[in-house]
Amino acid sequence: MNEQNKSYKRAGVDITAGQRATALMTEAVRATYGPEVLAGIGAFGGLYSAARLLQMTEPVLVASTDGVGTKTAVAARMGTWETIGRDIVNHCINDVLVQGAYPLFFLDYVAASVLEPEQVASVVRGMALACREAGCALIGGETAEMPGIYAPGQMDIVGTLIGVVERSRIIDGLRIRAGDVLLALPATGLHTNGYSLARAVLEPYDWQSANVELGGQSIGEALLAVHRSYLRPVRDLLEAGITIHGMAHITGGGLIDNLPRVLPEGLGATVQRGAWREPPIFGFIQQRGGISTAEMFHVFNMGVGMVVIVPREQATRALATLSVELSVIGEVVAGQSGVAIT
Amino acid sequence: MNEQNKSYKRAGVDITAGQRATALMTEAVRATYGPEVLAGIGAFGGLYSAARLLQMTEPVLVASTDGVGTKTAVAARMGTWETIGRDIVNHCINDVLVQGAYPLFFLDYVAASVLEPEQVASVVRGMALACREAGCALIGGETAEMPGIYAPGQMDIVGTLIGVVERSRIIDGLRIRAGDVLLALPATGLHTNGYSLARAVLEPYDWQSANVELGGQSIGEALLAVHRSYLRPVRDLLEAGITIHGMAHITGGGLIDNLPRVLPEGLGATVQRGAWREPPIFGFIQQRGGISTAEMFHVFNMGVGMVVIVPREQATRALATLSVELSVIGEVVAGQSGVAIT
Repeated sequence: MNEQNKSYKRAGVDITAGQRATALMTEAVRATYGPEVLAGIGAFGGLYSAARLLQMTEPVLVASTDGVGTKTAVAARMGTWETIGRDIVNHCINDVLVQGAYPLFFLDYVAASVLEPEQVASVVRGMALACREAGCALIGGETAEMPGIYAPGQMDIVGTLIGVVERSRIIDGLRIRAGDVLLALPATGLHTNGYSLARAVLEPYDWQSANVELGGQSIGEALLAVHRSYLRPVRDLLEAGITIHGMAHITGGGLIDNLPRVLPEGLGATVQRGAWREPPIFGFIQQRGGISTAEMFHVFNMGVGMVVIVPREQATRALATLSVELSVIGEVVAGQSGVAIT
Repeated sequence: MNEQNKSYKRAGVDITAGQRATALMTEAVRATYGPEVLAGIGAFGGLYSAARLLQMTEPVLVASTDGVGTKTAVAARMGTWETIGRDIVNHCINDVLVQGAYPLFFLDYVAASVLEPEQVASVVRGMALACREAGCALIGGETAEMPGIYAPGQMDIVGTLIGVVERSRIIDGLRIRAGDVLLALPATGLHTNGYSLARAVLEPYDWQSANVELGGQSIGEALLAVHRSYLRPVRDLLEAGITIHGMAHITGGGLIDNLPRVLPEGLGATVQRGAWREPPIFGFIQQRGGISTAEMFHVFNMGVGMVVIVPREQATRALATLSVELSVIGEVVAGQSGVAIT
């Protein structure tokens, strides 16, 4: 059903609290609507006019469904929910962006054992905010109250984003070759991965107080740092005519697992640690958990949110194009599989 | 990520059991691929060519995200998972169908405290089966293992379906008028709503043995009856040239809440109980739970899965068109709001 019709079902019966939350989030959701959204028509599904796809030669829809993992448990401990909404939208944006697609619309699913309307409204407002920043419409969603399925006080959040790319402009990694340069776009923190481990390590500590080791942030703040959207810098690169051979969104499995997903067979990568800034939360977790560096790079993004792979001759121009931090962190190599971090 | 790349993350580390499950479901998922699916390209998002939308005057994408509620707890008690996968796909198909849209592709999300690969593979095989029946591609999905968020042994399942309809053919309910006839397409059982109440009432009973009151089905079988897809009968009506003024998918909130969602302001509906066959599970629950008829109609679909609203003069031809059960159950009336069940 549409967001504006979201209802909170408890054994099928709407509850008043749900109506309050609906009012709270309706305005934010409506602010994401462009003329493509046929609002007020669909009581059961969200409607989005694909008229502008008719201007394309062969539009390809690119879709991603994902969650934010146990980052929801961090939100629960901190009582902060809006950022989680932004996290899931940005995560999905990055997942379709790696194929060169730009977002069209987003749908959400929010579930808990008991839904707190204000929490749900915060999450959806966060989603709406991130959608609006990306020019993406939040056209639908569902909330579910499932006692016995979810642990008390916990919530799961799922997002689905549909983007579009001209078929001839799909970025598929097939043109990647040895010598190509790996550029890193910085992560704000853990983004949406590694929270089971991070929570296990940090559970006994004070999450509320400013921490000098974390540059003055509290543990809770550092853990809730919002998953960054790379839509703008990647679009800037593409619009500047930079040839992008491939991209990897660094999520669960870190650089170790995600970078090889985009590399053609027979090619590996070398990455030089120290070539980018690692947010202090990673060292903080590693030290307190006694975790090996190998495991850290296999669980966390370690500060690299997105890797953009460009031909060597375009690396300098790419660096000059972007105003955001962009680091050369390594290169594509032949005769080796996987990622070697030195 | 794509279904074929599904991985089971535990603190970011892939586990071998996940690879087994991946192999189990890959074949079923691939069987849903038509030439529109650009398989093997997207490591992070599913790709679907929208080339055939270019033949349309103004294609409108219709999207629905939903879950199956606590029907997952019934699946857990019965140890049967494939039907849950079919449920969620069919639920989403019906949600976009009410606007006149036919399915293009589907994405799934499956999460639990600990993922049992065989369970996940069963769910996804069920999804793939239902997708294939509907000519819909299962282009992506995500699995998440979230200890502490989900109760032990429980699972949540979320589906997102994208369909398309020509703008001039959107079914929006605006042409509904007093005197229009309500046709009911039969439900197999509870479909995906009312399970919190049904489970609370039936919890103490034997769910495994054949039950004469349920026509020989066990309670577990009756509760797991698959949510029916109405794609084929509705398409048959449309292709036979029947004018459909509106449709309502009868989900949480029953006829009482769902029928008004499609009725224009100032119009209500009268429904004659007894005009359709009620699967025995409803009476079984009502009797044992001591539930009022009013509450039953507000929680359960009571055997009506979809209401199709047609002009009176076309009702007879509609009945003759379909080989499936189709019942005249009431009509649209002026000067009354809501649904009166007599």
